[in-house]
Amino acid sequence: MQERTYAADADPGTSATVAGWVHEIRDLGGIAFLILRDTTGKIQVKIEKDELDEALVETALDVHRESVLRVEGDVEEEERAPTGVEVTPDDIEVIAPADPELPLDPSGKVDAELPTRLDNRTLDLRKPEVKAIFEIRAEVLRSVREAFRGLDATEINTPKIVATGTEGGTELFPITYFGREAFMNQSPQLFKQLMVGSGLERVFEIGPIFRAEEHNTPRHLNEATSIDFESAFYDHTEAMDACETVVKAAYEGVAENCDDELETLGLDEAFTVPEGDFPRLTYEEAIERINATGELDDVLVWGDDLSTEAEHALGQDVGEHYFITDWPSEIKPFYIKDHDDDAELSTGFDMMHPSMELVSGGQREHRHDHLVEGFEQQGLDPGAFEYYTKMFKYGMPPHAGWGLGGERLVMTMLGLENIREAVIFPRDRQRLSP
Amino acid sequence: MQERTYAADADPGTSATVAGWVHEIRDLGGIAFLILRDTTGKIQVKIEKDELDEALVETALDVHRESVLRVEGDVEEEERAPTGVEVTPDDIEVIAPADPELPLDPSGKVDAELPTRLDNRTLDLRKPEVKAIFEIRAEVLRSVREAFRGLDATEINTPKIVATGTEGGTELFPITYFGREAFMNQSPQLFKQLMVGSGLERVFEIGPIFRAEEHNTPRHLNEATSIDFESAFYDHTEAMDACETVVKAAYEGVAENCDDELETLGLDEAFTVPEGDFPRLTYEEAIERINATGELDDVLVWGDDLSTEAEHALGQDVGEHYFITDWPSEIKPFYIKDHDDDAELSTGFDMMHPSMELVSGGQREHRHDHLVEGFEQQGLDPGAFEYYTKMFKYGMPPHAGWGLGGERLVMTMLGLENIREAVIFPRDRQRLSP
Repeated sequence: MQERTYAADADPGTSATVAGWVHEIRDLGGIAFLILRDTTGKIQVKIEKDELDEALVETALDVHRESVLRVEGDVEEEERAPTGVEVTPDDIEVIAPADPELPLDPSGKVDAELPTRLDNRTLDLRKPEVKAIFEIRAEVLRSVREAFRGLDATEINTPKIVATGTEGGTELFPITYFGREAFMNQSPQLFKQLMVGSGLERVFEIGPIFRAEEHNTPRHLNEATSIDFESAFYDHTEAMDACETVVKAAYEGVAENCDDELETLGLDEAFTVPEGDFPRLTYEEAIERINATGELDDVLVWGDDLSTEAEHALGQDVGEHYFITDWPSEIKPFYIKDHDDDAELSTGFDMMHPSMELVSGGQREHRHDHLVEGFEQQGLDPGAFEYYTKMFKYGMPPHAGWGLGGERLVMTMLGLENIREAVIFPRDRQRLSP
Repeated sequence: MQERTYAADADPGTSATVAGWVHEIRDLGGIAFLILRDTTGKIQVKIEKDELDEALVETALDVHRESVLRVEGDVEEEERAPTGVEVTPDDIEVIAPADPELPLDPSGKVDAELPTRLDNRTLDLRKPEVKAIFEIRAEVLRSVREAFRGLDATEINTPKIVATGTEGGTELFPITYFGREAFMNQSPQLFKQLMVGSGLERVFEIGPIFRAEEHNTPRHLNEATSIDFESAFYDHTEAMDACETVVKAAYEGVAENCDDELETLGLDEAFTVPEGDFPRLTYEEAIERINATGELDDVLVWGDDLSTEAEHALGQDVGEHYFITDWPSEIKPFYIKDHDDDAELSTGFDMMHPSMELVSGGQREHRHDHLVEGFEQQGLDPGAFEYYTKMFKYGMPPHAGWGLGGERLVMTMLGLENIREAVIFPRDRQRLSP
């Protein structure tokens, strides 16, 4: 297509062709202004009705907001213009006219509820503060991958269509796969474990996971992005070290590369990269601290899982990212290894943002007999998982790893109220489209 | 866990703890050698039976191949050792014993058919030449993403659970989604288009796609990795430029960062980065050249699609990556725009490796009325796609893009015979596990 200059790059004293969306139309009688918006920002187009060609004036004044125009003209300084420059057009072409009635106002002057925004994501992402979230999300993914490579981990892709789920048949979406029953994978857990036993030893994957949970909360999705890590010859403490490195790298990447986006979101001063080591509380310390807050109606006792309220009370008390370690074995999945010196105590850990859980991990059970026993105790048929367990008979090293919720990382980093704000096209019980 | 030294880093004159798999056991009577293998390479462990502690000798000689050991000892130069160094052990710990019977020989001395290899991928990826493929695959993804960022494209993630497929209900895997019918997405096509109309303007996605095609060939998968790109204000020629940049970047990344892997694969001399512009043949030129080869039984005429045989004949003739442009509109999808001056001629293009198609792309139909008409002509209900088409009423700029098969890129780059060799756990009609 024709050479195009971005709004932010249009230098006064040059002639340029800009292209973008009509953000605003201000008709002051003898003069009118079109504010054109593109991915880099805005630029003012001046329509002096008596000075310009009549057809051109007509074209300019006939367009509706959010139409796409190409404008060719001279760029000049104009301090009263929103960005200090304006274009006097020689030519205006309406590339894509917009209907006069918009389902959503991208200028943000009219508020819209989240469902309306999600139904009209194309228009919603024309708002700089919504676009900024997804530019930051992309930077989070970039910096996380770089951190993984810094840890010598190899990127893998594992299948999303599977014969069995990680933890059995519950909470799985069934698929018809050439006449056979299959499922959408709820976690790459089993596959990444199979890879630490291979020559790769240390792997990561960032990909979709699918959970048929009937949640309806601001922090659950039925399709989410899981950031997974697993390493041979790591124990749970080394896995926690890696987790801290990766989460900090995400914050550092955003701090370094997303100045404009943070400013757009009003976070440029509030945004801080977590410093120092994340505190590591044992489960026992955690329930003591929760009980000491007096925030809960009931006193927690050993063996209780932590409710959302308990997590909130603890998160407020700790006030930064932290780990909870040494959980009771019975409330952690069977594929997490217990401590060698105490079978009641799991090497499983969670990494928490003050407002919610971000990561779940641990050292894995790598001993074939213990693993098969775990399936049985869970009421699962070890035979259905033989493709996985049999590899543990051929030299499966001790290993540890974790899964980090990608959307929760973005949500907590930016203080979003609803996890759906961190996904372009979220999937929940009600929402299957767009 | 204890400090560990990689085999490749064990320096003569130091004492070290190495950990890995028993690659080979050579018992020569008074002396035995264990070859230990880890992700970096191999190291010899010397067992002088009269010199070492009896229990230690017993431990060492009792292990089976592919067991995981931790060996602590002094590292010395030994020119007769496979890597020029060997360890005299002070301590040997069997971390994970392996069964004596292996379903696959990771030393590669016993050949295995692909199905056996895929059933035992953990063992298969212990072979350096298989591991190398996936290290290269990871580098391809890294360098492709970097190239996209160089093109100012933003990474997006779009849903894999969808209400409707890109081209209707054929070739889709059905899902049960909270009692509703849904599908696994066959392409991010519609979603990436919706995003070029947003403030992002230029986007890329690397993610899984799912196609219920009943193929059974060495170059089709039912779950594959699609590398997708789409840009507002691009025409098909600019999309082709971007495609060339990205594919070259993948080759350049591998050439720069995968020396060892290419050597392992015996490709270090044969591997070349494509140079110069990829030739751009029109469809008309393509069929003329194919007919001129005389390789086909039938003469191709305008309107014929290109069979695998036709592609092979042309690929051999051209001998490098190339584009085929200006296809007859009737054999390209309806969402591809026709040339403005000739409705019989599509802006769709394919990018070909001499051995197969890698990329399909084009400028898209961005005019709402033409798009809706396209759905109708295709026999699809435009109403089912309204979540998509309606956004074209609110300022959808002209745009173009393409989708590149990730596995085909790796397969053709490395000359693999079967596309399944480029996927850790491939999915095809028969294979659903592991």
